[in-house]
Amino acid sequence: MFETVALDDESKQIVIIDQTKLPNERRMLRLSLAEEFYEAIYLLQVRGAPAIGVFAGFAMYLIACSIKAGDYEGFCAEFKKQKDYLNSSRPTAVNLSWALGRMEAVVESHRFAPIPLILDDLREEALRIRQEDEDACRAIGENALTLLKPGMGLLTHCNAGALATSRYGTATSAMYLGHERGYDFHIYCDETRPLLQGARLTAYELSQAGMDVTLECDNMVGALMASGRIDAVLVGCDRVAANGDTANKIGTSVVAMVAKHYNIPFYVCGPMSTVDVSIKTGADIPIEERKSEEVTSMWYERPMAPAGIKVFNPAFDVTDHSLITAIITETGIFYPPFSFAR
Amino acid sequence: MFETVALDDESKQIVIIDQTKLPNERRMLRLSLAEEFYEAIYLLQVRGAPAIGVFAGFAMYLIACSIKAGDYEGFCAEFKKQKDYLNSSRPTAVNLSWALGRMEAVVESHRFAPIPLILDDLREEALRIRQEDEDACRAIGENALTLLKPGMGLLTHCNAGALATSRYGTATSAMYLGHERGYDFHIYCDETRPLLQGARLTAYELSQAGMDVTLECDNMVGALMASGRIDAVLVGCDRVAANGDTANKIGTSVVAMVAKHYNIPFYVCGPMSTVDVSIKTGADIPIEERKSEEVTSMWYERPMAPAGIKVFNPAFDVTDHSLITAIITETGIFYPPFSFAR
Repeated sequence: MFETVALDDESKQIVIIDQTKLPNERRMLRLSLAEEFYEAIYLLQVRGAPAIGVFAGFAMYLIACSIKAGDYEGFCAEFKKQKDYLNSSRPTAVNLSWALGRMEAVVESHRFAPIPLILDDLREEALRIRQEDEDACRAIGENALTLLKPGMGLLTHCNAGALATSRYGTATSAMYLGHERGYDFHIYCDETRPLLQGARLTAYELSQAGMDVTLECDNMVGALMASGRIDAVLVGCDRVAANGDTANKIGTSVVAMVAKHYNIPFYVCGPMSTVDVSIKTGADIPIEERKSEEVTSMWYERPMAPAGIKVFNPAFDVTDHSLITAIITETGIFYPPFSFAR
Repeated sequence: MFETVALDDESKQIVIIDQTKLPNERRMLRLSLAEEFYEAIYLLQVRGAPAIGVFAGFAMYLIACSIKAGDYEGFCAEFKKQKDYLNSSRPTAVNLSWALGRMEAVVESHRFAPIPLILDDLREEALRIRQEDEDACRAIGENALTLLKPGMGLLTHCNAGALATSRYGTATSAMYLGHERGYDFHIYCDETRPLLQGARLTAYELSQAGMDVTLECDNMVGALMASGRIDAVLVGCDRVAANGDTANKIGTSVVAMVAKHYNIPFYVCGPMSTVDVSIKTGADIPIEERKSEEVTSMWYERPMAPAGIKVFNPAFDVTDHSLITAIITETGIFYPPFSFAR
């Protein structure tokens, strides 16, 4: 498995695998400036809701270390400004603003404390977010595994894998744990257009781990389920509303509708930090639209569509709670009607 | 509109646009040998069920012209051998074997006639297939237009356009006719992985015709329909079974399931020659599987998936008749329960 996001405290850098270069190149990036952190999220060099949360924690710690203000007021003002800047890099995944909120709370709870003490506690909080993510992913996998049997065919969409988290992944956690225990799953990965996270990242990390992996285009999910190869679907999530409506990578709702047609269980996997009870239904989740070149020309030598064509390119869609068999978190398995009171 | 398949009788050549090069290059191919005809179909230089039928008619005429046999028996044996060869180029679309069967029937009905007379009648039959296709496409469009209203948002998948037929297309015929009459449709094209016929061909031919066209990835169909932009889906077909089950480009069944979820009418458009009443249900339609490189590396500078990954790559899927609102042919509109007795 990968260490997707690592803190090098000595050099005051975050070390990540540049996910835009996989699977052809395994290039490590060492980042230290606020603009680099923003870019890394925006350009998807680091992606996956939980990994973005962990990255944001480390980023705010390093940004705090670089703040020149001599007093608490100045430090706090600059910290908040930088936090808002980083928060604007991507709108859909709640983990970004959630992790930034945790870091901000550290600063706010140390009113007029010496800056070095605040920095120590910011580092501790960032490392705690990372460790909690790893622990949550493992617990999600253990919980999901109780719903699966050896030899099953499992479909996943996009990358909710180790590369999207600190370790294990969310949707893939049960695949890793099952693989360790000889479950012999047959894993199917949707390639996930336009950015091909399924082909480039999920197929890569799971086949590197020695699993039986098959790749297919997103539109093949009907033929795949009709063939009887799929026993369950496991996907990640970027934000879960109070009623269970789930925003996840574009195409997730389509997989859910096809699974419903074929009576195949559809499981959403994610840490409780992805549940946003402040949002009642999926209709209120902001959906990021991205530039048309991702569809018409990215990855290609030459554009594969007529010049100047209009493009619809939302990065996420919302899967209605009625299509979800269960939502699997680190604290347990939630079934409809969904209620996340803690 | 394009003349997708043309016969140059003087030079004994078929002239086609190489559809694998669109939209970046408009390269014409002039073909005269049986191996070139086979390759053109197999490599998708000519594609679309009706266009393949027209192409096969011209091809068998030109092959017949080149047969060296002096007597009817020898001519007939060679004709059938070449027919079987061409028929093996692609298995799913029924129009190929249907057109080949019509050409063969001409030969069989001229038992012991002089070869030049048979050749004349083969040319006539091939031109008739072409003209009937154009007439059928126009009639399909007129019939489909009775179900549509000005200003509607229309979604199509793959290319069932002018490039897939002699003219007008099947799914696109009502779009062309409506455009001529100022209907101001908003057309949405699925890009249609892996071969991108929607992006490269449909978006190209419809925008060239001056229509309002938007392109999206196949997995965006859920978000697209949820947004309220789509009032009806129009797709083509490669083979329709007696019960209405329809084989069409991979992903069609997925669009149909999503349309069902959102209560959006789903129309299949095709000539009666695509209906194969010898096949009871879609389960008996042969589905072509194609090579994995189409998914992992075609169009790309470098492979976009891990080396050696297994790939599921069926070229078609079957849409269950229960998901189809109506099947629109040149003879009329068929509603469930489907019955195609003529």
